[in-house]
Amino acid sequence: MSEEQHGSPRGGPSQELLYDPTIPSPTHAERARTLSASVPTGTLCTLGAGGYPYGSFVTFALHDGTPLFLISALAEHTKNLKADPRASLLVAEAGEGDPLARGRVTLVGRAVQVEAHDREPARAVFLAAHPSSAYYADFKDFGFWRLEVESARYIGGFGRMSWVTAEAWSAASPDPIAPSAAGILEHMNADHKETMLEYTRAFSRAPDASDAELVAVDRYGFEMAVATPEGPRPVRVAFHAAVESADEVRREMIALAKEARAILAARPGGR
Amino acid sequence: MSEEQHGSPRGGPSQELLYDPTIPSPTHAERARTLSASVPTGTLCTLGAGGYPYGSFVTFALHDGTPLFLISALAEHTKNLKADPRASLLVAEAGEGDPLARGRVTLVGRAVQVEAHDREPARAVFLAAHPSSAYYADFKDFGFWRLEVESARYIGGFGRMSWVTAEAWSAASPDPIAPSAAGILEHMNADHKETMLEYTRAFSRAPDASDAELVAVDRYGFEMAVATPEGPRPVRVAFHAAVESADEVRREMIALAKEARAILAARPGGR
Repeated sequence: MSEEQHGSPRGGPSQELLYDPTIPSPTHAERARTLSASVPTGTLCTLGAGGYPYGSFVTFALHDGTPLFLISALAEHTKNLKADPRASLLVAEAGEGDPLARGRVTLVGRAVQVEAHDREPARAVFLAAHPSSAYYADFKDFGFWRLEVESARYIGGFGRMSWVTAEAWSAASPDPIAPSAAGILEHMNADHKETMLEYTRAFSRAPDASDAELVAVDRYGFEMAVATPEGPRPVRVAFHAAVESADEVRREMIALAKEARAILAARPGGR
Repeated sequence: MSEEQHGSPRGGPSQELLYDPTIPSPTHAERARTLSASVPTGTLCTLGAGGYPYGSFVTFALHDGTPLFLISALAEHTKNLKADPRASLLVAEAGEGDPLARGRVTLVGRAVQVEAHDREPARAVFLAAHPSSAYYADFKDFGFWRLEVESARYIGGFGRMSWVTAEAWSAASPDPIAPSAAGILEHMNADHKETMLEYTRAFSRAPDASDAELVAVDRYGFEMAVATPEGPRPVRVAFHAAVESADEVRREMIALAKEARAILAARPGGR
C-alpha cells in the first residue's frame, strides 16, 4: 500500500500529523468501489460525431466491479459505442459544501453489449438497483451494456488522488460499513463525546483536545475532527482488525474505549 | 419553433392532449440555458490517453452562454485539453424521483485557455459563482478555460430531447422566473387550489377535474398536474405575453383568474 494509493494526510504540509499515518485505512481502490456502490447515476463519456467526447447522464448498476447500463439503441451514447467502444464512467459523490472536496471516480475502459446468454444475470443486477426500469427493460430498442474497466482515476478531494489499476479495482470490495456509517456517526456524536476525547488523548498527539467529532468510519477504523488550541485537526484510530458489520464496529469501539481509559489512568495526572 | 424544439407532449400517445400544444412554451435552447444557469457543477469530457473519452467532475460558471472553468495544469483534463481541445460538458439537473425524468444538457465544442487580456472578466464571472475558489484562483498552476459551444444536446426527460445549434444556444436566455419558481409553486398550491381548478375548467378540456397542482412556471406560462377521472393529466396555460419577474407572474395569474371566472360564468351551469 503506497502513499500514492493512500493519498496524503490532510493536516497540510506545515502541520505534523497527530496520528501514525501508517495505520490501516482504505485504499483508493476501496474508496472508489465504496463510492461507486453508493451512487446509482453517473456520466457516460463516449466518442461522438467528429471525434468529440460526448457526456451523457446514465443510471448504472455494479456487477462485482463491472458497471452495467440499460440503454436505448436510439440514444446518442449507444450509437457512439456501436461505432467505438472506448468509454468512461464518472461517478461523483453527492453532498453539501465545497463540491471539489467530495469524492469521485472515473472508470475507463471499453463498453460491450451484454450477449443473450449473459442477459439474465445482468438484468437481475440492474433491476435490483433500478426497479423502475422494469417497464422498459424488455423493450426491443433497449439493451444491457457493460463497461470492461481498464483503469480508474480516484479523486478523494483536494490533493488526494491516484490512478487505480484494473486489478486493484477488481480485487477491492465496497466498504461493508458504508451503509451504516451515517447512523454510527450520529450515535457517537450524540452520546459518546467523552469517549472520543479519551480516544484522542490516549491514541493521538493531541493532549489538549477540547472536543472530538466522529467524521468517518470504515472497515479499518474511524476518523475524528479534533478541536485543538491550533484549530481543528484530523485524528484517525484503527480497529484491531478489519470489521464486517456495524455490530463489530460497536465491539471495537468498546474495546478501544477500555484501552484508552487504561492508557490514560497509567499516565501522570490521568491524561 | 418546431416540434423537435419543443418536444412531444407528455400525455402519452394514446391520450388526447387537454390543451392547445401550440401555446407558447420554452424552447429546448431556453430550457437548456435555464438548467445550466441553475447548476454550478458538471462533467467535463476530454480525450485522454489512448483516445479514450475521459470524464471529470468540474465546477463551472456561464459567461453569457460560454462555460468557464478554473483548472489546474496538473489535472488530467487540463493535460487532455492541451493535447486536443475537443470537449463536452454535461450539466444535469438535481432532484428527487426517477433520475432519468430530470433534465440535462451536453454542450459540445472546443476548450481554449483564456488569454491574459480576457482573464479579468472571466475571473470576475467565475469567482461570483464560486467564491471559495478565490484562494487558489491565482495559483501559478491554475488557469481559466472556456468551452466554445458548437452544439448542445438537450434532454428534458423521457422522449423530450433535441440537438440545439450554437446559434440557438447563444441567442437563448435563462428563464427569469426560474429563481422564483419554487416559491410561486408553494404559494399557489398552498393558497390557490380553487383558482387553479378555474383555470383548468375554463382553459382546458378537463371539465371533470377534481384537483389541480401547479408543477412548473416559466416566462411563457405555467403547467398544472390535473386530477381527472382518467388519472393525472398535464394542463398548460399561457400568459398573454412573456413575463420578466415574479411580480409580473402574479399580475398574469390574477388577470387569468378573472378571465377564467368570466368564461365559466357564461357557460350553462357555470362550469
